[in-house]
Amino acid sequence: MNRGEIEAAARRIEAREFIRRTPLWKLPGTALGVECAEVWLKLEQFQVGGSFKGRGMLNLGVKCEVFVPTVSSPMKQAKLRELGAQVVVTGAVYAEALEACLARQQQSGALLTHAYDQPEVVAGAGTLAREIEGQGAGAPDSVLVSVGGGGLIAGIAAWFEQRARVVALEPELAPTLHAARKAGEPVDVAVSGVAADSLGAKRIGAIAWEITQRHVRDSLLLPDAAIRDAQLWLWKQMKIAVEPAAALGLAALHTGVYRPRADEKVCLVICGANLDPATLA
Amino acid sequence: MNRGEIEAAARRIEAREFIRRTPLWKLPGTALGVECAEVWLKLEQFQVGGSFKGRGMLNLGVKCEVFVPTVSSPMKQAKLRELGAQVVVTGAVYAEALEACLARQQQSGALLTHAYDQPEVVAGAGTLAREIEGQGAGAPDSVLVSVGGGGLIAGIAAWFEQRARVVALEPELAPTLHAARKAGEPVDVAVSGVAADSLGAKRIGAIAWEITQRHVRDSLLLPDAAIRDAQLWLWKQMKIAVEPAAALGLAALHTGVYRPRADEKVCLVICGANLDPATLA
Repeated sequence: MNRGEIEAAARRIEAREFIRRTPLWKLPGTALGVECAEVWLKLEQFQVGGSFKGRGMLNLGVKCEVFVPTVSSPMKQAKLRELGAQVVVTGAVYAEALEACLARQQQSGALLTHAYDQPEVVAGAGTLAREIEGQGAGAPDSVLVSVGGGGLIAGIAAWFEQRARVVALEPELAPTLHAARKAGEPVDVAVSGVAADSLGAKRIGAIAWEITQRHVRDSLLLPDAAIRDAQLWLWKQMKIAVEPAAALGLAALHTGVYRPRADEKVCLVICGANLDPATLA
Repeated sequence: MNRGEIEAAARRIEAREFIRRTPLWKLPGTALGVECAEVWLKLEQFQVGGSFKGRGMLNLGVKCEVFVPTVSSPMKQAKLRELGAQVVVTGAVYAEALEACLARQQQSGALLTHAYDQPEVVAGAGTLAREIEGQGAGAPDSVLVSVGGGGLIAGIAAWFEQRARVVALEPELAPTLHAARKAGEPVDVAVSGVAADSLGAKRIGAIAWEITQRHVRDSLLLPDAAIRDAQLWLWKQMKIAVEPAAALGLAALHTGVYRPRADEKVCLVICGANLDPATLA
């Protein structure tokens, strides 16, 4: 995975005019209650489908059956159907849906597209980092990214390499990368908590493992209460309506789990927005 | 009211670092289901307080008592209190709260700040148009603006003058500008409907009347159902959570009440976001 593959993915995506170039909003740190020079919000929750996921899928661009676990939100399932996918809801968590997907693939001979552990998918996710750098007129000092299976952080770290400090954030209750680092290799973890719907992969992807070992120094954990507080803060103070998974960056700043320098420009990747808005009330 | 006063207001506002520079999001028309070259979304619902209103108030910058009618949302009242205002909830609709405010002002001798019919307030609102032009690297072809008392459209029209086509949009159930044009002068109207909370002024302001007569050709009306449809579309398709008042521009495009040219760049002013998110579910 390198910048060339991400550039190629960006060209393919741009040609189709389906994926949106989401806003990058630069704010003084104080606007977010953070003592640093700037906070950049990459508002990727405005992406088609409410998530960066389309960047990888459109880099493949095929008719599809999508396998999701019963823990996935009905909003998300409805959205997938609306976009033309045949949706199969099966298994309690991500890993079980993946198993069903693999069985179906063997039977049908269809092309298998992994949710995060596939080069095209990671390259597609990397286009988000390329977009941040273009819109920001340069790389930020640091990028705070939520990690589930690791497809997004792999793409972002592959793009920035050492030019920005890419920080991995995970819920304490879904710590795939953190557990892998402790074990010295990817291992299965139990997943639960407020962000299990979107960050609830059972194991960090092999591609993400390899890339993050090279380019990501910090792997930090956040308790559910801090994630939920940050999610509600984003709505109440910023009128940004997003899932818990989108709030880990702000939670890390508000709790001090990540402490930027005074002159730092921190970028938060805000994604996704497949939530029941009543949960913000 | 001229561009110089708006420039001066912008400098005062910038010096205080409280008002946010909200994102301008440029999209191809097709992303909004509209057959025109570009739609620019000025995401002013992300402004401090969820609305452009702070732009005018900070151009004054004083301790205050705020008078609001009982129709105003509890969310909005809570937000005002949080920002340090003493909030007086009185009267059924805007005009009655204004009466109580005037009585209190006579008694206290405090400086009266009108919600829309005051030069400083209009100049503050105009900074939003200046910001659009700066961020857009030029003026759009047209700007679609929701009208209540007219403070926002007055500021926007005073900034753009004839350099962009400024279009006034009102709910059929709160038609202050439309009724004034019919009568040849500002007149009282009955107000009700989905946007009465934020667009429910009883009469167009004198400043807005004067400026819109010079610079605004189109005064268009929208039924509540179209406004509500557009509000829900913004949430479901764009993940933008806003009040009905913020959706009039999209409603005008979706219903064909306003039909842009094929090569037109249309800017929608999206404001505000003081809503109960459960109303989007």
